[in-house]
Amino acid sequence: MIAQETLKEALKKNRLRSEVYMDLEYLRFSDDFKDIPRGTVLFKDTIVWGYPHIGRIFQLSTGIREQFSAPFWVEEKVDGYNVRVFFHDGQIYALTRGGYICAFTTDRVLDFVNPKVFEDNPHLVLCMEVAGPENPYVEESPPYIKEDISFFLFDIMVKNHHGFLPYEEKLKIIQKYDLPSVEMFGKFSVEQVEDLKALLRRLDEEGREGVVLKEDSPRDKRVKYITRYANLNDIRITSLNMLGLPPDYYTNRLLRLALFVEEEGIQKDETLYRELGEAFLSGLFEACKMAKEYGKVRRIFRCRFKNRESALIFLEQIKHSSTHIQVNELSLQKVGKFWILEFEKVFLNMTGLLGHLLSGGSLID
Amino acid sequence: MIAQETLKEALKKNRLRSEVYMDLEYLRFSDDFKDIPRGTVLFKDTIVWGYPHIGRIFQLSTGIREQFSAPFWVEEKVDGYNVRVFFHDGQIYALTRGGYICAFTTDRVLDFVNPKVFEDNPHLVLCMEVAGPENPYVEESPPYIKEDISFFLFDIMVKNHHGFLPYEEKLKIIQKYDLPSVEMFGKFSVEQVEDLKALLRRLDEEGREGVVLKEDSPRDKRVKYITRYANLNDIRITSLNMLGLPPDYYTNRLLRLALFVEEEGIQKDETLYRELGEAFLSGLFEACKMAKEYGKVRRIFRCRFKNRESALIFLEQIKHSSTHIQVNELSLQKVGKFWILEFEKVFLNMTGLLGHLLSGGSLID
Repeated sequence: MIAQETLKEALKKNRLRSEVYMDLEYLRFSDDFKDIPRGTVLFKDTIVWGYPHIGRIFQLSTGIREQFSAPFWVEEKVDGYNVRVFFHDGQIYALTRGGYICAFTTDRVLDFVNPKVFEDNPHLVLCMEVAGPENPYVEESPPYIKEDISFFLFDIMVKNHHGFLPYEEKLKIIQKYDLPSVEMFGKFSVEQVEDLKALLRRLDEEGREGVVLKEDSPRDKRVKYITRYANLNDIRITSLNMLGLPPDYYTNRLLRLALFVEEEGIQKDETLYRELGEAFLSGLFEACKMAKEYGKVRRIFRCRFKNRESALIFLEQIKHSSTHIQVNELSLQKVGKFWILEFEKVFLNMTGLLGHLLSGGSLID
Repeated sequence: MIAQETLKEALKKNRLRSEVYMDLEYLRFSDDFKDIPRGTVLFKDTIVWGYPHIGRIFQLSTGIREQFSAPFWVEEKVDGYNVRVFFHDGQIYALTRGGYICAFTTDRVLDFVNPKVFEDNPHLVLCMEVAGPENPYVEESPPYIKEDISFFLFDIMVKNHHGFLPYEEKLKIIQKYDLPSVEMFGKFSVEQVEDLKALLRRLDEEGREGVVLKEDSPRDKRVKYITRYANLNDIRITSLNMLGLPPDYYTNRLLRLALFVEEEGIQKDETLYRELGEAFLSGLFEACKMAKEYGKVRRIFRCRFKNRESALIFLEQIKHSSTHIQVNELSLQKVGKFWILEFEKVFLNMTGLLGHLLSGGSLID
């Protein structure tokens, strides 16, 4: 549990905030606070801990020797958004990384997760990645998901507890309830650098994001490592909204990209350079075109809901989620068994600055 | 003059600092303060005002209509460092943009500037760009300077006064004293967009930085505009030290590059993309190589002094100019009539982070 004193202090500093989802009230840590991770959520008698930060290595060969002192499990890192799925008061909910109950993910979770897991184990929290071309948050999607979304389990937590279930217990639960999970590549020793590099080359060629490595030891240490493809793709996808991102977003990915190429012995050739240059510029050219033609830089999202009400609640949620992005509903209509919501995110920084510059404005820098 | 009260306030807030160059004491504004620009310098009875900020436009066609209400002079913007050259107590000095008397520039100024200009006009302050492959500050150099440095006058100020001499007076002084100046392309009207665009295309092809536009009117309004080449080159040159730069350095240049290409109708083709990708990655690969081979990421500088003592003073100056860069002398020897100083700048951020990552360290982001 968390000490009453800590809660009071967090409330006073506005790190712990009151939230409501339908008729469910809860408290949410909006930022890391002492040893409590952002996204930790408190109900009357229950804490769902936030998903912890995982360190990133930039070099496999030296990284696994430096980070691990025992063999480690290797799993695919799926490019989507992180949710925690749990059972509370007769309902299954999905929390975002930041600790909001997401109306979209909650609406769809039972299409992918067998509820029997919670009937038998109401104390579990399933940590899953949601990915796919029809998700409302992430503009990227793994190449093997052709439509809608998918859920991928990668960790299991227990309510009120820090840390994760042991790997073998996780495997048993996945198997018993036939839960969808990230691809697991087995256990590697610290000596198997070349095998791991070969795996990463394959994932890179397949357009996948990378891996999470989990030490098979009580301390359960984890690190992640990302492919060349994923870094290039991040740049390609976000360049449309370049000014909406944290300033070190690109330098970070460039460094990861360079070190991946170095380590994997990938050709430093024209193809690589062209792909990178195009990743940066294609989005910027598109943004200019949009600013000239429509007076706004935007991206259109589409997602499928089972219930119309969930879509309406979700719209309200996402409209209030950022001051840099304006969300406008485009359409909501029933197609087959789903309600299809289409909405646009207007990138206000990019729209404002491009509007100013294209009409001849100046900047002092 | 500046009010005593303002000076006291600036001293208290540490924006006005005491400096010494040889036996000359002066005060220096280390940052903009109220309407006083950074680099403004005070001697006993004299103020040398800082060089003001100039706004940048990203689109010529709309920009000149938006910014100017009269014809404007067009001059080359040379890629070097900005100095103010002036006469004080029997000596000619050169101040950097930040307001330091630079031992290097002061040592060399009389090789390029006719001192008669100050004999006749001791009240003038010559605003000049110093550029060339053997300058100690800027890693770039205009393609037409093959060795050493050159000085290029672009504005003339008067001691104790804000603002610049009128354009025609500047031209007269340049002519009378045969002063080296930036290339001047004449006066353009707001209607001559296409002529100006053609000029910029030529400068771009010649590998030059861009232009400064100066309205021919009492308000003397100025804006600058930069070529595709210069933006690419900035990226190419600095990527070795990517982590030492302000975080928006690259997003800024990418935006300028995209808008230049849009406006000038330059092909959005593989060559452009390849050049950009290579600009980002070649420096990063070089930095990795250096970190692995020498344990440091560095750039070597070389410059020519007339006096050995100036070189020693300069070394002390530059050693204390940044906490992110370590400066080490490599050699100082007489070759012909010059003392040749070679030194390295070790980029500490890049060295430290690459060292950490290459040896397998992790980062949380």
